[in-house]
Amino acid sequence: MKINPRSGLASLPRPGDPGYRLRRSVRALREALEANQTKAIQKYFKGLAPADVGDILRKLDQPELAQALPLVADDQRTEVFVYLPMSLQLQHVRTLNRRESSDLFNGMPADERADLFMRLTEEEQQRLLPALAQAEREDIRRLTAHKEGTAGAVMTSEYASLKADQSVEEALLELRRVAPDRETIYTSYVVDDNRRLIGVTSLRDLILAEPHARVRDVMESRIVRAKVNDTQRAAARKIAKYDLHALPIVDDDETIVGIVTADDAMDVAARESTATMHKGSAVGELKESLLESPVTELFKKRVFWLVVLVVGNLFSAEIIENFEDLIATNVILVSFMPLLVDSGGNAGSQSATLAVRALGTGEIEVSDWLKILIKDLSVSFLLAMSMAVAVALVGYWRGDIIIAGIVSLTMVFVVVLGSIIGMMLPFIFTRFNLDPASASGPMITSLIDAMGVFIYFGVASQILTMYQGGL
Amino acid sequence: MKINPRSGLASLPRPGDPGYRLRRSVRALREALEANQTKAIQKYFKGLAPADVGDILRKLDQPELAQALPLVADDQRTEVFVYLPMSLQLQHVRTLNRRESSDLFNGMPADERADLFMRLTEEEQQRLLPALAQAEREDIRRLTAHKEGTAGAVMTSEYASLKADQSVEEALLELRRVAPDRETIYTSYVVDDNRRLIGVTSLRDLILAEPHARVRDVMESRIVRAKVNDTQRAAARKIAKYDLHALPIVDDDETIVGIVTADDAMDVAARESTATMHKGSAVGELKESLLESPVTELFKKRVFWLVVLVVGNLFSAEIIENFEDLIATNVILVSFMPLLVDSGGNAGSQSATLAVRALGTGEIEVSDWLKILIKDLSVSFLLAMSMAVAVALVGYWRGDIIIAGIVSLTMVFVVVLGSIIGMMLPFIFTRFNLDPASASGPMITSLIDAMGVFIYFGVASQILTMYQGGL
Repeated sequence: MKINPRSGLASLPRPGDPGYRLRRSVRALREALEANQTKAIQKYFKGLAPADVGDILRKLDQPELAQALPLVADDQRTEVFVYLPMSLQLQHVRTLNRRESSDLFNGMPADERADLFMRLTEEEQQRLLPALAQAEREDIRRLTAHKEGTAGAVMTSEYASLKADQSVEEALLELRRVAPDRETIYTSYVVDDNRRLIGVTSLRDLILAEPHARVRDVMESRIVRAKVNDTQRAAARKIAKYDLHALPIVDDDETIVGIVTADDAMDVAARESTATMHKGSAVGELKESLLESPVTELFKKRVFWLVVLVVGNLFSAEIIENFEDLIATNVILVSFMPLLVDSGGNAGSQSATLAVRALGTGEIEVSDWLKILIKDLSVSFLLAMSMAVAVALVGYWRGDIIIAGIVSLTMVFVVVLGSIIGMMLPFIFTRFNLDPASASGPMITSLIDAMGVFIYFGVASQILTMYQGGL
Repeated sequence: MKINPRSGLASLPRPGDPGYRLRRSVRALREALEANQTKAIQKYFKGLAPADVGDILRKLDQPELAQALPLVADDQRTEVFVYLPMSLQLQHVRTLNRRESSDLFNGMPADERADLFMRLTEEEQQRLLPALAQAEREDIRRLTAHKEGTAGAVMTSEYASLKADQSVEEALLELRRVAPDRETIYTSYVVDDNRRLIGVTSLRDLILAEPHARVRDVMESRIVRAKVNDTQRAAARKIAKYDLHALPIVDDDETIVGIVTADDAMDVAARESTATMHKGSAVGELKESLLESPVTELFKKRVFWLVVLVVGNLFSAEIIENFEDLIATNVILVSFMPLLVDSGGNAGSQSATLAVRALGTGEIEVSDWLKILIKDLSVSFLLAMSMAVAVALVGYWRGDIIIAGIVSLTMVFVVVLGSIIGMMLPFIFTRFNLDPASASGPMITSLIDAMGVFIYFGVASQILTMYQGGL
């Protein structure tokens, strides 16, 4: 369908409507930008949610973006901007003059601002800082002080705080006053004179309370909080577990230093899941999305483990060489090798994935290892027996009764051992403070492969010797 | 450390405090239950968040649970109960008499109530229904009408609605009035006389508005919503993308029928990630957690694919048999087989995981396939060259220059083809409305294994024939 550039944008379906195609909207926007239809573009943007404008703008090149972003309504521009991928945010900031970039930074939410600031070169940071207001400078300094991956590094300083002695009426007035600058006012944090966190209260409870009651009587003093150095994953888990809108972050003195909001926790949880999946297939952690990662980055994140695994597979090669004579006289054994070895690897990677995910979500803990081991022994034994039956039939059909015995016996060993290794390695990794996700997938496959090859030819040579080379 | 049963519970560390051990709390609670220390237990529960009480209670046996649950404070009991795993909820409900169970059901949040109701046998449902209030009966009927996996099946009917003509002051009074029965009052939904959704407003905006302004002037009419039959995943994605507290769910007439809240969306997203990971290792979807799934359930969810993969691996066996003579005269070829075949499988499973996850989060769409294919061609070619060099050295060291040529050439083909198959299969699956996650891991490994074996011995026989059996 060809879009008429005059009426193009106005007649496009909106996101959520049937027939909406991002690709088509991007093309129409490009045409409109080229034709300088500022009014039409402004109107089009106004009809969309900031995230949808962001989806379109992220597909543009830098010069187009510089042209389009100022056409977003003032009250939505920052929201659209922070929705863009970091690389595009950086490119854009670098095209701005000092005045424009200080305006942008002053308007941004505290957490996103700190993230962007950290990506600037030291020189750019030094140039920008004097242009920012004192409060913003201080804020950036505090928020960027925390190590990547900690709760401190994702928190925002824009929370609402109350005093325990305030009346509910005063508290509501106060929240109304600060609402425009706060990430959330639905949860507020009650602090003492040293800003130590002593309670939490929700706007719902404040609204339902008597106006003359004290905040102290309404607040919940059983506080769920995280320390500034806790991991982001731990903070996100707490938000999910306790169904919070926001989690307060405190330092060692229980002084509140920020909050992590539920929407940030959702992003953290999604990033963690992605990293776990990637690690499970031996892909390193990507800084950007698949689409936005350059080829060299993808290559780097993949080649390391692949080459390590080549080295790991040399063990299998070594073992096979030791059985060369056996193989030369019983070539049929080779045809069962992929099947037997893969079955161990598959059972192992099933187990590893189950363990890694359950440990990752906190559903099981390291101390549950024995319970899980016993359960896996039962499960893998049942699996091994079923598969042994299947492979015995194949062995008899393609070879003879002796081959059937060799392959089914091997199958039992390989599946049970493979499954147990897969189930236990993530526990061992966690116990030694390594990421359990690194223990899944290809690494386990290589390990079990070598083991499987050894068991297979070991069993075969024992049995065939017993039967004096009965083939 | 031995807990003194008299002072045991009171002296225990709380969750979040250093030294807290769930295991120890469970043991102390068991001892206290045995010693009938109801007062101490009540006090202990009061000091904990409902989710933490739930963590402890889920470790108890049914009779202990029946003893402990009534000791939870009235205003927290339902929250604790719905935090328990479904199997335990069911067991518990079945011990209650009609009066007790109708009390429980009447008090539960609408969405959790519908979930539990669905798990009862038809007979139990028929016995319970007359004991429930008319409104609750109707509500259950409506909420249980939706297919599992749809937005309708996770939504709750407890949302707050407003009229466009109301003043902001009236709206705030109304929200205050309904707050105790609503899942959230932070977002309210503006409906016309037919309950068609015409706007959305936040409590923040209402508080900031002039009291005499109309809701119509405050509300956002650009509504992000999902249809009742949309998938849960799509609904959860919208909540994450637009940073919503809750997503309104409408039927085909745009009539609002419920909302999905952000905390439910977080649970949905976590469940989806778990299912994707499990499928990626050929494990079927588990209804309960790893710890709570019985052995038979785990066996069933794992055996199917393992046996399918055995059948799949027969292709490899078939191919190998066709090259028996080649292998018998060149046994050294066998020792490189696991290495070459695994490398293709590993590269393929890396690609598959990248594609599955990016498709799963909505970060890429099916229409991006060409862009991704081109990128993967570059990446996999670089990977293949690096690995070919590594394996050529090994081949020369263990064999000769001809072996080095065979294995490095095979490596290039296997890695590039493996990677591309892994990257494209998830797109093809998605295109045909199959879950792309089923295309990752073991299935791809088996496919690439067979292909790898064929390429390897094909290349080897070509080259060795050229050199007249040069080994």
